[in-house]
Amino acid sequence: MKVKIHSQWREVRTVDFRERDNAVLLVEQRLLPHRFKILATRDYHETAAAIRDMVVRGAGAIGATAAFGLAQGARAFRGRDLARFQQHMETVYRTLKAARPTAVDPVNAMDAIRRRLEAGRTVVEQQELALASARAFAEEDVAHCRAIGKHGAPLIREGMRILTHCNAGWLAFVDVGSATAPLYAAQAQGRRFHVFCDETRPRCQGATLTAWELAQQGIPHQIIADNAAGHLMQRGEVDLVLVGSDRILGRTGEIANKIGTYTKAVLAHRHGIPFYVAAPLSTIDWQLKSGREIPIEERGPDEVLGAWGVIESPKSEVRSSRLGIQGPGSLVRGRRVYVRVANPDSGARNPGFDVTPPELITGIITPAGIFRPRELWQRRRELGG
Amino acid sequence: MKVKIHSQWREVRTVDFRERDNAVLLVEQRLLPHRFKILATRDYHETAAAIRDMVVRGAGAIGATAAFGLAQGARAFRGRDLARFQQHMETVYRTLKAARPTAVDPVNAMDAIRRRLEAGRTVVEQQELALASARAFAEEDVAHCRAIGKHGAPLIREGMRILTHCNAGWLAFVDVGSATAPLYAAQAQGRRFHVFCDETRPRCQGATLTAWELAQQGIPHQIIADNAAGHLMQRGEVDLVLVGSDRILGRTGEIANKIGTYTKAVLAHRHGIPFYVAAPLSTIDWQLKSGREIPIEERGPDEVLGAWGVIESPKSEVRSSRLGIQGPGSLVRGRRVYVRVANPDSGARNPGFDVTPPELITGIITPAGIFRPRELWQRRRELGG
Repeated sequence: MKVKIHSQWREVRTVDFRERDNAVLLVEQRLLPHRFKILATRDYHETAAAIRDMVVRGAGAIGATAAFGLAQGARAFRGRDLARFQQHMETVYRTLKAARPTAVDPVNAMDAIRRRLEAGRTVVEQQELALASARAFAEEDVAHCRAIGKHGAPLIREGMRILTHCNAGWLAFVDVGSATAPLYAAQAQGRRFHVFCDETRPRCQGATLTAWELAQQGIPHQIIADNAAGHLMQRGEVDLVLVGSDRILGRTGEIANKIGTYTKAVLAHRHGIPFYVAAPLSTIDWQLKSGREIPIEERGPDEVLGAWGVIESPKSEVRSSRLGIQGPGSLVRGRRVYVRVANPDSGARNPGFDVTPPELITGIITPAGIFRPRELWQRRRELGG
Repeated sequence: MKVKIHSQWREVRTVDFRERDNAVLLVEQRLLPHRFKILATRDYHETAAAIRDMVVRGAGAIGATAAFGLAQGARAFRGRDLARFQQHMETVYRTLKAARPTAVDPVNAMDAIRRRLEAGRTVVEQQELALASARAFAEEDVAHCRAIGKHGAPLIREGMRILTHCNAGWLAFVDVGSATAPLYAAQAQGRRFHVFCDETRPRCQGATLTAWELAQQGIPHQIIADNAAGHLMQRGEVDLVLVGSDRILGRTGEIANKIGTYTKAVLAHRHGIPFYVAAPLSTIDWQLKSGREIPIEERGPDEVLGAWGVIESPKSEVRSSRLGIQGPGSLVRGRRVYVRVANPDSGARNPGFDVTPPELITGIITPAGIFRPRELWQRRRELGG
């Protein structure tokens, strides 16, 4: 997507590869929205560290990062001994896999590329195949997102007000995104609409990443506290809800997504507002028999007990300094810090995801079309299940 | 309630009066939970500023603050001329009223005290009546909260897990609180239970004030992101929801409360979890005919776009400094600042309150007993309507 860098617009992908210096290029997502920077990893160890340390996140994006990391590792090998090359590749594979042990996308991506390497008879041939396959994998990710956009765009009608949750945007994929794809496609078709971004506590991906994406693309939007969605729906100010998914159960039509998604689905259902989930087919899990089997990650308490941001002092608070509250004074404005918001003696519960049942979901937008949640299982042959 | 100050427990009220230096004593709520301080206002101008600048907030607390502010102004008058005293009192009244123009409690409190002053025939008599009446007003507030606790305590059974939203605790009243009153009463009766505090974005009164209150009283609790309540209910981990109210419509049984309350009521209803609202009778509005008539304050965007907290660096983030993110370094740890979390180019919508319809409310806990929302109108005679 286009990004304004030093007052110039550039086309940027979340994950890319630069042959000249054998570098994986990643949008450094931990600095967004306050700073835009592309990180170039010099070797596969750095690429693994970038996956582990959340420089890059999102199913599609970490899959492509692992794929390019594998190619990067392959191309760094010196010599012609195929057996030693294969030993080396095993090490590269394990290093990248260990970077995010619970994620399935890096493993799927690297397995697909390893299967294609078998066609190469020399080290050089396999090195070339590794890069060509990683590039093909990334292109496929983009094509899937574009197809989601094509199918989803007709849902976005002129003047609509759309609620999103978390970030399933181009920053979570190689480009375009899943939940954002229908928005970008509708915009390209000339329609105007307004987006409410749930801030999405505790990690605030809506306020930071989705809002940043929409601002770059010039789509009118406002950030709201997660608490405000119900009120806006009650007052008739939301026409459609559009979210991504971390896992879709093909057998039941349940979807797992960022904590808070279930709440928005319950509210949308009460108010008769369509609730759509957008995801590539690789998100569908054909094995699990119930949403109860999905492990819900319990994350650390710091995310709930505080927030990351850039030091600033809004006018409203400076004004009240008379009775004891001061502005940041000598602190460096613009510095990114973690602040503890909550009572220091209190702990937190922090479930990272929740599960939304099929009766609350209007449709699932995939690259193969839009399906009702319970339709997936009937049509599993054509959907790759 | 009791507060630990310099490792000693002290009984403290949110609002109090010190005759020696004619000072209104207020818990400085903008510094909580990071610092506990009692602010002594020297004259009624400072008391008005404390109301305006949110040193004190909550219906009961600002009512009592205005009442004591009126007494403080009366006692500062020098002379015996009753006409000039009454002129002076009019100025005091207007100054305190202007501090929070939309709030009804300061006006109701001061009107009640002014009516009692009429019994005094000299300046000195009226000065004494002003203080005595303000003290009586504060005692009544405490008595009402205690009565809410008495009626509500039986709802809190051994081992229950209770969800609260925002702060309707003793910090919002002179003492005890409304939504917290049943908790404190049940604790005093020896029952054990667990409280989930919604952090209550954007102002985070749950994470800061309610969590601080519960920690002081030794009630086990955890803070959760507002997004997590639905998931916990779905997994059967919430037995009861207990909130306060800013306005209860006596005619319809609708209640207005902090943004996000409606969402919790919708979720509780879906899961068959009892949803109770606690408030003194003064919160009941017998005039309005529909919740649609309640003006919903649209607050400034800064609250949604950032957060107030104390600079800290959790271990989890320091560990990832290798790829560019740094800890606070030379910044002063423990300093309270505002940080901008959201994308700098994005705006926000920030409705401060929402309205919950009677069909989602199990009961309204008042000092006169527990009522179903639609029962209020039938029983308006005994409830003061």
